[in-house]
Amino acid sequence: MVKVGVAGYGVIGQRLADGVALQKDMELVGIADLAPTLSIRALKERGMPYDLYLVEGADKSKFDANGIPVKGNFADLIGKVDIMLDSSPGGVGAKNKALYEKAGIKAVFQGGEKDSVADVFFHGYANYEKGVGARFLKLTSCNTTGLIRSVDCLDRRYGIDRVAITIIRRVADPGDYHRGLTNALQMDKAPSHQAVDLMTIMPHVEATGILVHTPVTHGHIITVVAHAKTGKITRDMALEAFKAHNRIRVVRLEDGFLGNASFFRYARDLGNPRGDMYEIGLWEDSIVESGDNIMYAINIPQESVTIPETMDAIRAAMKMQGDSASGTAETNKYLGLGKWK
Amino acid sequence: MVKVGVAGYGVIGQRLADGVALQKDMELVGIADLAPTLSIRALKERGMPYDLYLVEGADKSKFDANGIPVKGNFADLIGKVDIMLDSSPGGVGAKNKALYEKAGIKAVFQGGEKDSVADVFFHGYANYEKGVGARFLKLTSCNTTGLIRSVDCLDRRYGIDRVAITIIRRVADPGDYHRGLTNALQMDKAPSHQAVDLMTIMPHVEATGILVHTPVTHGHIITVVAHAKTGKITRDMALEAFKAHNRIRVVRLEDGFLGNASFFRYARDLGNPRGDMYEIGLWEDSIVESGDNIMYAINIPQESVTIPETMDAIRAAMKMQGDSASGTAETNKYLGLGKWK
Amino acid sequence: MVKVGVAGYGVIGQRLADGVALQKDMELVGIADLAPTLSIRALKERGMPYDLYLVEGADKSKFDANGIPVKGNFADLIGKVDIMLDSSPGGVGAKNKALYEKAGIKAVFQGGEKDSVADVFFHGYANYEKGVGARFLKLTSCNTTGLIRSVDCLDRRYGIDRVAITIIRRVADPGDYHRGLTNALQMDKAPSHQAVDLMTIMPHVEATGILVHTPVTHGHIITVVAHAKTGKITRDMALEAFKAHNRIRVVRLEDGFLGNASFFRYARDLGNPRGDMYEIGLWEDSIVESGDNIMYAINIPQESVTIPETMDAIRAAMKMQGDSASGTAETNKYLGLGKWK
Amino acid sequence: MVKVGVAGYGVIGQRLADGVALQKDMELVGIADLAPTLSIRALKERGMPYDLYLVEGADKSKFDANGIPVKGNFADLIGKVDIMLDSSPGGVGAKNKALYEKAGIKAVFQGGEKDSVADVFFHGYANYEKGVGARFLKLTSCNTTGLIRSVDCLDRRYGIDRVAITIIRRVADPGDYHRGLTNALQMDKAPSHQAVDLMTIMPHVEATGILVHTPVTHGHIITVVAHAKTGKITRDMALEAFKAHNRIRVVRLEDGFLGNASFFRYARDLGNPRGDMYEIGLWEDSIVESGDNIMYAINIPQESVTIPETMDAIRAAMKMQGDSASGTAETNKYLGLGKWK
Repeated sequence: MVKVGVAGYGVIGQRLADGVALQKDMELVGIADLAPTLSIRALKERGMPYDLYLVEGADKSKFDANGIPVKGNFADLIGKVDIMLDSSPGGVGAKNKALYEKAGIKAVFQGGEKDSVADVFFHGYANYEKGVGARFLKLTSCNTTGLIRSVDCLDRRYGIDRVAITIIRRVADPGDYHRGLTNALQMDKAPSHQAVDLMTIMPHVEATGILVHTPVTHGHIITVVAHAKTGKITRDMALEAFKAHNRIRVVRLEDGFLGNASFFRYARDLGNPRGDMYEIGLWEDSIVESGDNIMYAINIPQESVTIPETMDAIRAAMKMQGDSASGTAETNKYLGLGKWK
Repeated sequence: MVKVGVAGYGVIGQRLADGVALQKDMELVGIADLAPTLSIRALKERGMPYDLYLVEGADKSKFDANGIPVKGNFADLIGKVDIMLDSSPGGVGAKNKALYEKAGIKAVFQGGEKDSVADVFFHGYANYEKGVGARFLKLTSCNTTGLIRSVDCLDRRYGIDRVAITIIRRVADPGDYHRGLTNALQMDKAPSHQAVDLMTIMPHVEATGILVHTPVTHGHIITVVAHAKTGKITRDMALEAFKAHNRIRVVRLEDGFLGNASFFRYARDLGNPRGDMYEIGLWEDSIVESGDNIMYAINIPQESVTIPETMDAIRAAMKMQGDSASGTAETNKYLGLGKWK
Repeated sequence: MVKVGVAGYGVIGQRLADGVALQKDMELVGIADLAPTLSIRALKERGMPYDLYLVEGADKSKFDANGIPVKGNFADLIGKVDIMLDSSPGGVGAKNKALYEKAGIKAVFQGGEKDSVADVFFHGYANYEKGVGARFLKLTSCNTTGLIRSVDCLDRRYGIDRVAITIIRRVADPGDYHRGLTNALQMDKAPSHQAVDLMTIMPHVEATGILVHTPVTHGHIITVVAHAKTGKITRDMALEAFKAHNRIRVVRLEDGFLGNASFFRYARDLGNPRGDMYEIGLWEDSIVESGDNIMYAINIPQESVTIPETMDAIRAAMKMQGDSASGTAETNKYLGLGKWK
Repeated sequence: MVKVGVAGYGVIGQRLADGVALQKDMELVGIADLAPTLSIRALKERGMPYDLYLVEGADKSKFDANGIPVKGNFADLIGKVDIMLDSSPGGVGAKNKALYEKAGIKAVFQGGEKDSVADVFFHGYANYEKGVGARFLKLTSCNTTGLIRSVDCLDRRYGIDRVAITIIRRVADPGDYHRGLTNALQMDKAPSHQAVDLMTIMPHVEATGILVHTPVTHGHIITVVAHAKTGKITRDMALEAFKAHNRIRVVRLEDGFLGNASFFRYARDLGNPRGDMYEIGLWEDSIVESGDNIMYAINIPQESVTIPETMDAIRAAMKMQGDSASGTAETNKYLGLGKWK
């Protein structure tokens, strides 16, 4: 059993912990955080299913005052795990890395950290093999993770050499009060970092794109114009590839999937914990041909989309499986991905 | 075991079914709906935990085409239950009533129906006794249900004779695409129907109020200015009463409950199915005195707040418990209300 | 002086009237509407700068009750004009057409009508010549009008043969209460009608695209991936072309044009009537190359963008100028377009 | 002619400058700012109707690079004026005060500064006389200004001794990208500062209230529950008082004033510069009686509502008129307030 810890129990950290808890070949040793946030209070109200450790700077008396049991400090947690999933606020992970190095454990960082924090910039499908046995991995961000799933899906079958993307980005998560946008679309400087990151992970693809922030909370939507190295990818060819993928849900407008909020509602109706969905959505009705290019739109559930690929990262780093096919298959099995087909 | 059916598996119907399923002294016989909506598709993906019956007008071939098992038609369901929870779209419940009458079963209608559909306009705390043994009950709407909880809570202890409310109403539910408001507040004609409805349920209270729609989806916020028949309710007196109530969560800004979206996020973090919360929220930091009046603000989780009082309604109608104290206590026990204290 | 009337004094109709009033070679005879809307009330409060005529079905007593002077009925207005700008609600224009035919006047319809209402589907730059002397013209919709401006701009210089667009659509106008979207992105069936319409106006271009509705009110944003028939359009080539266009404002993020709402604010700060802007915005920072394609993002001020091209349509229909260059130049002169350079 | 300067050409500063320019007994000497913001760029595009002076820290080369003419520095402007309207960002006004003191000029600060910056916390109707001849005045904030207008209106006729308010606050202005809220209502600690400020200006009134932020940009809505010292204010009595006020627009839902965005749209349709409105709106349909209390709802156009009272402040400070009646009458005359009746 690979022993796993989670540093930073925020939006991503909570879901990483839940994800690890579902992997029967991993053990979630505990989670670490700084303050008795709402998420930590909820953990207490749930009866502490995960042990809590305090990172440096935490004021234990605040936890005591709220009756929140503390198992130990961050060093204790580090001492018990083989690998840490670091979902601390951006920049903190880089500082934690020194602790991991000293303790001789591995770590997987999230998209908020700089690429330089890690040896490998990782995606479970597109470059799993690079992560095998690596010590420090960094996951692609939520948009890039979902985008690469879809581009890699076409690339494996038909060979992609160019994509131009438009990211319609959600600006906050449900419950966020520290950031927001009101009645405005906001433009980012092009090219978007997601396009640049895609090229790092998939160096044989030329990518560029434009990102626009929108005042919503339930999922990004990305349109992709993709070009095949040779030949033309027809609508049917694209659809066939997407439908076969275990982390892509192909949906239709006529069935009621009208937008990003439909996926959120559907996941709630499924009874998924937190109303989360691991799969990206892909609208069958959005696929159109443009000359030799194929164009389509996907939905990225930003809070949970990176969880499967992070599980893949553990598998790669800990050499639990040696290639993408077997690594992702194990993750999918434990997360129930593809069983809805 | 009281046998219960649910007509209309929408936002409310789904939650009614889940609520009944948690009551160990009730049996959920099945649910009825018209079309293979996203909610019905989710039911299928979950493995049909509830049997599905089709109401008149449903096209069974559409369910077959999606592989959704159908147990029977609406008449079949009616024939098997003691009481129906009718959460059909507004107006349909009134038509269904004839079927219930013919079959000799009881029914509880939701707030969308006209008051005339029912013998008793019902609230689990404020007028439970009127519902005991009644045949047709109608629940108060979401806002009114939560509002009355808080006013009744003060009324029992201190005697309320007047309230003036301001309802800051959420305009849609998460995932709604058939209604919405964009960058606008919308004023309703005063007095709001919630104030009028409160007077129907609590005839000794004079109530009025103003309702403003806001472009959000996670919970209404209501401010209440309440006046006691005799004496003055101090901040401490109000707080003590609210804290003792099992369907009111008293929270603080400093703990991270910053607004309606915090409750939604907290419920998701709790792992509550659909990210739902049955309790209304009440901000300790909002309670202020104004002359002889006490003023406070509450949060109404619109999708789920009426579920407990609907369970109460079944208990009253079926004479499972004869008074509010014992009826609400049973509901609270099965829904886990108050256990977080 | 060409005599012009405006039928339908709503969001577009008001701006058409203002636009005509600025053309020194045209006379605005009057406007026609059905009810004392806020816009008509505002007209009255402004002292009736434009004469008001009532369309069939209008209740004159309601205007009288509000002290709003009425000049005559729709037939009176039709009898006084050479050409009618019909911005009635969708479908009404088609009915009005019979009146215009009978009276022997010309008409320009807006995007809400079906293409079949008109002899020519018109854009001031892309196919002005087709409209010269035509009797019934229909303007492209707001998005299509702005999109074609930018594509035609590149096409004239470099020859475009293919575009793939992503439309990030605003869902309502400021002050709209009859439509809206709350915390949701909504997907449309692809290809978007704007892409199809572009091909009607510019038949030598293959166009497709995806449209996503967003809950904002201040301007659509469109990303365009454009391909040249021969050679490659570099970033500098595109920028040079865009900067030379009198109806395109090239802006930069660093100057404070952060999104669609910046244009709205800027137009207000300029003191433009209604805070309107006739130009589309184009972000210099959005222009990127993708293989042989050029990609860029534009902002469409939906309420006012079609006004200049509608003035062009009058010029074409009435043979005031015989080609696009001279027709658009006259419109630009009177609307002050390009003078900010 | 009283010579006036404006320090800080932001949302409020621009409108102060426009307001002063309309007062025929005042001269706008110029405005001062720090950077070539969009507002300053718009000033340039308009042909510099107001002279621009640079405050300390400004980089003149940036203005030169954009071809924006600069008349002098802040000291030059201070040297030319009798009184400065300081609408600098919060906290800067307090620093500027030393410059004003040294130069022997008077100043009016906006709501963002601390009360201690001024000798008198001022409202044109409620305490004009306290400002007569005063050296440093501070205006009430936008919400407080509009709120006091309505409470003072009732107080003058009927004597008010208590109010309880609920503020439904817009969270950003149109075009704001530095603050925002997405799909969330946010609660503030009670009592709201507006209630506290009201008591400072109107010490004979006991006030309290709750403020909730909402994700919209077009105007705050406030509900007020007001109590008369003696007797009861009926709906008709309140309506009569409100209708007689020159800075209150009484409107009806049935006429199309559906919410805060209707006022914004109406002001645009009026052709008001920037789509601004100086009056607060008051819904006739919102007025209801609650025991001895009267309850009503008002709309506060946050960007422009303080302009009239700031003009009043100049009149008081410079002893142009000696009492509220004559001071506000002059302001109203030049701003056209009340002429729409």
